[in-house]
Amino acid sequence: MTTPAPRDPDFASRVRESFDRQRFMATLGASLQTVTPGEVTIALPFSDALTQQHGFLHAGAVAAVVDSACGYAALTLMPPGAAVLSVEFKLNLLAPAAGRRFVAVGRVRKAGRTVSVCEGELHAFAGDDDAEGKLVALLQGTMMTVHDRPGLAD
Amino acid sequence: MTTPAPRDPDFASRVRESFDRQRFMATLGASLQTVTPGEVTIALPFSDALTQQHGFLHAGAVAAVVDSACGYAALTLMPPGAAVLSVEFKLNLLAPAAGRRFVAVGRVRKAGRTVSVCEGELHAFAGDDDAEGKLVALLQGTMMTVHDRPGLAD
Amino acid sequence: MTTPAPRDPDFASRVRESFDRQRFMATLGASLQTVTPGEVTIALPFSDALTQQHGFLHAGAVAAVVDSACGYAALTLMPPGAAVLSVEFKLNLLAPAAGRRFVAVGRVRKAGRTVSVCEGELHAFAGDDDAEGKLVALLQGTMMTVHDRPGLAD
Amino acid sequence: MTTPAPRDPDFASRVRESFDRQRFMATLGASLQTVTPGEVTIALPFSDALTQQHGFLHAGAVAAVVDSACGYAALTLMPPGAAVLSVEFKLNLLAPAAGRRFVAVGRVRKAGRTVSVCEGELHAFAGDDDAEGKLVALLQGTMMTVHDRPGLAD
Repeated sequence: MTTPAPRDPDFASRVRESFDRQRFMATLGASLQTVTPGEVTIALPFSDALTQQHGFLHAGAVAAVVDSACGYAALTLMPPGAAVLSVEFKLNLLAPAAGRRFVAVGRVRKAGRTVSVCEGELHAFAGDDDAEGKLVALLQGTMMTVHDRPGLAD
Repeated sequence: MTTPAPRDPDFASRVRESFDRQRFMATLGASLQTVTPGEVTIALPFSDALTQQHGFLHAGAVAAVVDSACGYAALTLMPPGAAVLSVEFKLNLLAPAAGRRFVAVGRVRKAGRTVSVCEGELHAFAGDDDAEGKLVALLQGTMMTVHDRPGLAD
Repeated sequence: MTTPAPRDPDFASRVRESFDRQRFMATLGASLQTVTPGEVTIALPFSDALTQQHGFLHAGAVAAVVDSACGYAALTLMPPGAAVLSVEFKLNLLAPAAGRRFVAVGRVRKAGRTVSVCEGELHAFAGDDDAEGKLVALLQGTMMTVHDRPGLAD
Repeated sequence: MTTPAPRDPDFASRVRESFDRQRFMATLGASLQTVTPGEVTIALPFSDALTQQHGFLHAGAVAAVVDSACGYAALTLMPPGAAVLSVEFKLNLLAPAAGRRFVAVGRVRKAGRTVSVCEGELHAFAGDDDAEGKLVALLQGTMMTVHDRPGLAD
């Protein structure tokens, strides 16, 4: 799509501040990387603390970083004062999430007044220098722009 | 559905041992509760370490426990020697996941030879004594029975 | 859930009139059956005109009747003047949709001000007298209450 | 992804023959367009017979053509003798499906031995000469390679 211009000139710092309030990202060891209009990336190093029974990254940890990347991608295009909430998402696990580090990408495909639709990916990297990584998960989800709900702001 | 009889008489201990290998469940503070043929429940106490930016349980933590409940519900009906993998799931967040504790329920709706389909729910409880809780998330997902893949067993 | 009371006393005739405007339902040969608060059923006889390449009901025909059942289940609980739109749905096909007739059921699991979440099922019947049928598809979807959009009413 | 080479040199005619057996495509008025390894497109002219209650293309008709495009995209990469079945799909409706004609695109993102994951899109065109069209729906789905099931071949 042609990404619309951000309605909030401070979209990047706004995303960074909201991300820092996500205590779960710190628990996972995830860090915010790039923030551009309609696209956000999050890095996650592998840790034994995040594994499922076969030693791969747990699908819930995958969902966490890809959902956050998508939610914040949607937030980059929201007007000042609005908050973002995940309505739903669907996650396909394409391959075992094995690797030393992972990068989640969230992209807006449709930025609506109330509802935005995003696509997300998780790429796994075996080392620090891999150029491209391996696609291990795909997400398609719906994010909501929330106005005027007490206590909800981003 | 009429739940088929488990093909593995030791299904409950098998699920418990696999759950104990999920390091991510310990990281979240989740514990396995009931294990019956075709249905598994997991308890998760609220913790600040699991929150998103508004102080509610992060959607990734929700996904983690409901996906595990569904995967293990599917495993209760799998033959000895098989392993379970999540193929995909879809999670709807019905209300902010606020509460002191949460219970995830996973149920098999169709147990196939290769593919099983499960439904999951997350219930939020404001106190220790609530009878029923509040439904805050719904999941519909696909689990796969994996045979003969080196290193994969449950 | 405890289904809330309908806010529109004429919910049933409202659903029936909207269904009759869905030309695609007539094309499929589908007919509206029961309409109660939060639940709607639709019947679909088998027809060769609706098949995929192996002779089963096409997934798109399955999606059509289950999505309509869910959308109209949501509409039973919407205030007068609002219209219903499908935001998204996820459909699992549990078994080949073979049979002489099919019944789609849509149920509201959460009726929100803007967003409602529904579950749907498709049951296949080999004859006219089967008591229960066979569950062949499951849907989980999101419906939106639309106000004040020119030309949109239900 | 780097699309793998087709394992069946006759993949295109195989897809065309299977498409021609989908009676539902003829009922909708849909026609197969391009068939390349990992990607298939299907054209659908608007017709009143396919509408929902507001006069837009019904979500079930949208699902039908995008699911078929995805299933056939997966089939282009399957070995001779295998059949394709839709396991599940998730469809987001981004905008009302209004237009004179529509083009569904299905693309393989992961071609696995048993399970393939595809993304699909529906583009709406107001006239015959539009260059690009408007994205009105997104699909993410899982297709299965079926071997040795009596009566199932593509």
